[in-house]
Amino acid sequence: MPIIAFIGLGQMGAPMASNLLKQGHQLSVFDINPQAVQALVDKGARAAATPAEAATDAEFVITMLPNGDLVRAVLFGERGVCETLSREALVIDMSTIHPLQTDALIQEMADRGFSLMDVPVGRTSDHAVAGTLLLLAGGLPEQVARATPVLMAMGNELIDAGGPGMGIRVKLINNYMSIALNALSAEAAVLCEALGLSFDVALQVMSGTPAGKGHFTTSWPNKVLKGDLSPAFMIDLAHKDLGIALDVANQLHVPMPLGAASREVYNQARAAGRGRQDWTAILEQVRAAAGMNTTH
Amino acid sequence: MPIIAFIGLGQMGAPMASNLLKQGHQLSVFDINPQAVQALVDKGARAAATPAEAATDAEFVITMLPNGDLVRAVLFGERGVCETLSREALVIDMSTIHPLQTDALIQEMADRGFSLMDVPVGRTSDHAVAGTLLLLAGGLPEQVARATPVLMAMGNELIDAGGPGMGIRVKLINNYMSIALNALSAEAAVLCEALGLSFDVALQVMSGTPAGKGHFTTSWPNKVLKGDLSPAFMIDLAHKDLGIALDVANQLHVPMPLGAASREVYNQARAAGRGRQDWTAILEQVRAAAGMNTTH
Amino acid sequence: MPIIAFIGLGQMGAPMASNLLKQGHQLSVFDINPQAVQALVDKGARAAATPAEAATDAEFVITMLPNGDLVRAVLFGERGVCETLSREALVIDMSTIHPLQTDALIQEMADRGFSLMDVPVGRTSDHAVAGTLLLLAGGLPEQVARATPVLMAMGNELIDAGGPGMGIRVKLINNYMSIALNALSAEAAVLCEALGLSFDVALQVMSGTPAGKGHFTTSWPNKVLKGDLSPAFMIDLAHKDLGIALDVANQLHVPMPLGAASREVYNQARAAGRGRQDWTAILEQVRAAAGMNTTH
Amino acid sequence: MPIIAFIGLGQMGAPMASNLLKQGHQLSVFDINPQAVQALVDKGARAAATPAEAATDAEFVITMLPNGDLVRAVLFGERGVCETLSREALVIDMSTIHPLQTDALIQEMADRGFSLMDVPVGRTSDHAVAGTLLLLAGGLPEQVARATPVLMAMGNELIDAGGPGMGIRVKLINNYMSIALNALSAEAAVLCEALGLSFDVALQVMSGTPAGKGHFTTSWPNKVLKGDLSPAFMIDLAHKDLGIALDVANQLHVPMPLGAASREVYNQARAAGRGRQDWTAILEQVRAAAGMNTTH
Repeated sequence: MPIIAFIGLGQMGAPMASNLLKQGHQLSVFDINPQAVQALVDKGARAAATPAEAATDAEFVITMLPNGDLVRAVLFGERGVCETLSREALVIDMSTIHPLQTDALIQEMADRGFSLMDVPVGRTSDHAVAGTLLLLAGGLPEQVARATPVLMAMGNELIDAGGPGMGIRVKLINNYMSIALNALSAEAAVLCEALGLSFDVALQVMSGTPAGKGHFTTSWPNKVLKGDLSPAFMIDLAHKDLGIALDVANQLHVPMPLGAASREVYNQARAAGRGRQDWTAILEQVRAAAGMNTTH
Repeated sequence: MPIIAFIGLGQMGAPMASNLLKQGHQLSVFDINPQAVQALVDKGARAAATPAEAATDAEFVITMLPNGDLVRAVLFGERGVCETLSREALVIDMSTIHPLQTDALIQEMADRGFSLMDVPVGRTSDHAVAGTLLLLAGGLPEQVARATPVLMAMGNELIDAGGPGMGIRVKLINNYMSIALNALSAEAAVLCEALGLSFDVALQVMSGTPAGKGHFTTSWPNKVLKGDLSPAFMIDLAHKDLGIALDVANQLHVPMPLGAASREVYNQARAAGRGRQDWTAILEQVRAAAGMNTTH
Repeated sequence: MPIIAFIGLGQMGAPMASNLLKQGHQLSVFDINPQAVQALVDKGARAAATPAEAATDAEFVITMLPNGDLVRAVLFGERGVCETLSREALVIDMSTIHPLQTDALIQEMADRGFSLMDVPVGRTSDHAVAGTLLLLAGGLPEQVARATPVLMAMGNELIDAGGPGMGIRVKLINNYMSIALNALSAEAAVLCEALGLSFDVALQVMSGTPAGKGHFTTSWPNKVLKGDLSPAFMIDLAHKDLGIALDVANQLHVPMPLGAASREVYNQARAAGRGRQDWTAILEQVRAAAGMNTTH
Repeated sequence: MPIIAFIGLGQMGAPMASNLLKQGHQLSVFDINPQAVQALVDKGARAAATPAEAATDAEFVITMLPNGDLVRAVLFGERGVCETLSREALVIDMSTIHPLQTDALIQEMADRGFSLMDVPVGRTSDHAVAGTLLLLAGGLPEQVARATPVLMAMGNELIDAGGPGMGIRVKLINNYMSIALNALSAEAAVLCEALGLSFDVALQVMSGTPAGKGHFTTSWPNKVLKGDLSPAFMIDLAHKDLGIALDVANQLHVPMPLGAASREVYNQARAAGRGRQDWTAILEQVRAAAGMNTTH
């Protein structure tokens, strides 16, 4: 079994380290919180006084830290990992940090002759305890292959995100979408309540439409993703319905900032001549607004 | 079989009327477009020169019109439905109009001794042709019961929305949610593209999370909907992740107006002292912003 | 002195009618509120039982009503103005209504052989009492000339807005700008407070910059309005500063939805290749987003 | 004349340093760009190879750098200012950076026994050349007094912002307000164009109202700033007018994301029971949303 350095024993890191121990790995652990360290020592880990000490002789170094500045400090700072790290070792950053910072870390490590891959995790601390995290693996194919046995001690599903830095990218996209969607869902639910409509009825209806199932697997695949913008439901009509919803919400005093912002996106799509295209053409509209070439 | 007046033979109305004919109903049809009328006459309908003529002897009057002003004109205008309508007849408005206008129509019809229920439809014109529309029935239980056999000639699923005006309300909520979600999904997809991440990988990850499955049936039921705001994922962290996403998007020139609006909702939740609550507490935050009482 | 019908004696209309009486005009007044009518009768007006009765023999008919539907009803409804109106009379709608509704009213009146002009007012009810309103005159030059003596009994400044429907348009633009600016100003002031900065100091600084003086007469005239987009202050830097402000605001829990929306406008300007243009190029950016041709 | 170290000779820094030379100051200059250094040497400055060398013997050290990380590096990095800085010297950071970073710099300098004040500048590079910058002085009274003679060599107006860190704060507020206002102004101007209204007429009207003059010195002082929320113009009416403007803009395809966001602020104010308060109560509304206590 490989020797692993584990740095960052917080709400997520501690149970992840525990699961590595359970699988029989030798662990050298570091955290600024001595109690967190002691809890792992009690389970069989070796305490390290510094990241450098933890990394000595390690084949894998796992970092699970609150932000990218801390990852940087742990790697490159005084008594940091790089002072003792073997050129053969693989650093696995499992923290959720800024993707462009991840890119910089990968590059700087490479510049010094070291290897770092990004494997942020999905799901919750309960899953960390159960060893059923979702592992989003960025890295070269050989890095993913090499890390997989270690990673699978902490999770039960691993997705190869497609290359260095792609693990943290897919984590970002997923979190963006789910966090903003949460706010949008709240607007819909509060409007529902203000209208005196049963939320159960609304759920029943939405469970069979893109409102509940999302667009990625329903309205998009056969339309915009295939380049077919002939209207199943026109931008103009979608814009009109948004206008009615906002009008009702404003009469009933339900603030809907996301709804208001979205109407202006449709408004701009109409200004761009897309009024009679399929509503999924909004994807092309946003691409154009981002300065990307659109063929449709 | 009951005699039915059908008013409004557009892209949706025409195939709906056709399906009623196929089921053996007697139809009297009206539209301002004579070609649309002739097409139905060719299938066995009787042409009416005015809404009033169409409504003569009808047991059901179905309206399928572009907006509420037209519904109002067809009912109450000169040579309108109410000039000949029987007190025993049931008017079924299947148009998508403003819900508060629906309420007014129901009330005004009742004031004159008539009955109107709202049954807007879900799905597309393809489903209208196939007779597989989703029927969202507002109305009193006896109205829903009475209309069901007629309605099921046009669709294959009927949801009782819970009372007068609730059909149009659930349609509004569903459309609001799906139309705004479409714009949000586009932001996520374009950020994905700008990050050089495979959209297939993103879909694979999101298919297992609220990002792809929505919150209504995943993160909400055991948390905010039960009044449990202990954090599985904290508002503060969600806010932080949104900030990273917006920062990346602004570096990569991807406009994200919905994301920007949503960060301010989380910002306000934190200002209201909810930073350490579960992210699903956003529902309570939006309720409070709408002036509703919150107990959490 | 001409005979004037005055319809709508609310918070604004009542003192406006009073000032006409003071100038010696004969007034025939109508309102649904009998007390409002009586107050004017006590000052010398004649009460009319209907708009039609008020308009009999009138050379001018002034309407000052809460919305366009009421203006329409007063003109075209039963016992409405048009039943008795002389083809020689001039209707002056001073209400604040939807501009496209104003256009329709002008057209429909013309179709019937009547004349209507739009003269909404600026300033407050205090100014209505003092006879110092701002008069925003839409209408043909001869209509403006003819109405001016009557209008100047109610105000002390008249601006010829440039043609039929332009009075209500300039009112709309002015109100849009001032109302939205009010919300933006609140964001800046609250951020100021959250930063512990003296508001007086902030005012002192802003009084000398576009922040306090606006852009129309400071940064725009010599740049974008002349087609000169060479940077005095670059879009890229403006975007950066907005990012700092939003970051600070989010750290201090100050919600800034307008600021967040504006950053995405600059973001989109950068995506369109305008990063190194002058910040006044935002005007060209918004024009492009509205589907207008831009030469810069 | 005091000896001054000047670090950062960019578009703003170079002419500022020149003006110091013209006033007879001895200057030791540093920049990473050797050409920028040479240009100043040609005018009489002494070139320094490092920030530390520049700071040797200096009574004042002026930093004019693109961001706070660079200021930090110049002060605390290897061969940085602090290696040679006298405890008697005063560091004047004139850069535009993140205010919370300024606070940290002031604190860290104090912890080491050094003094730093923040004096960002207003106006443009043309004013930097002319020596007519606006100087926004943060710092203790004695620091402001001491620095004034030096600062006035670069500008013609100095505002004492009220204490350490307040210079950068007032700069941030001013820039936030003017940059976001620029985007809002563009929405109004484009709507004006879409409505076919003369922009000159709109300017004429707005020049006499808060739309053109701002609210800080017009509508606010006698209302919300005095705690008087009795309505001169009601929130409800402002909300209604915004709704009309957005409706018109959406019909004419003019995207107005700031306007859309502002309507939701008024919407929320109405939900909070402020509908019949004066429109300046929006300030109290935003304060409440930021978690501040409101007494009105």
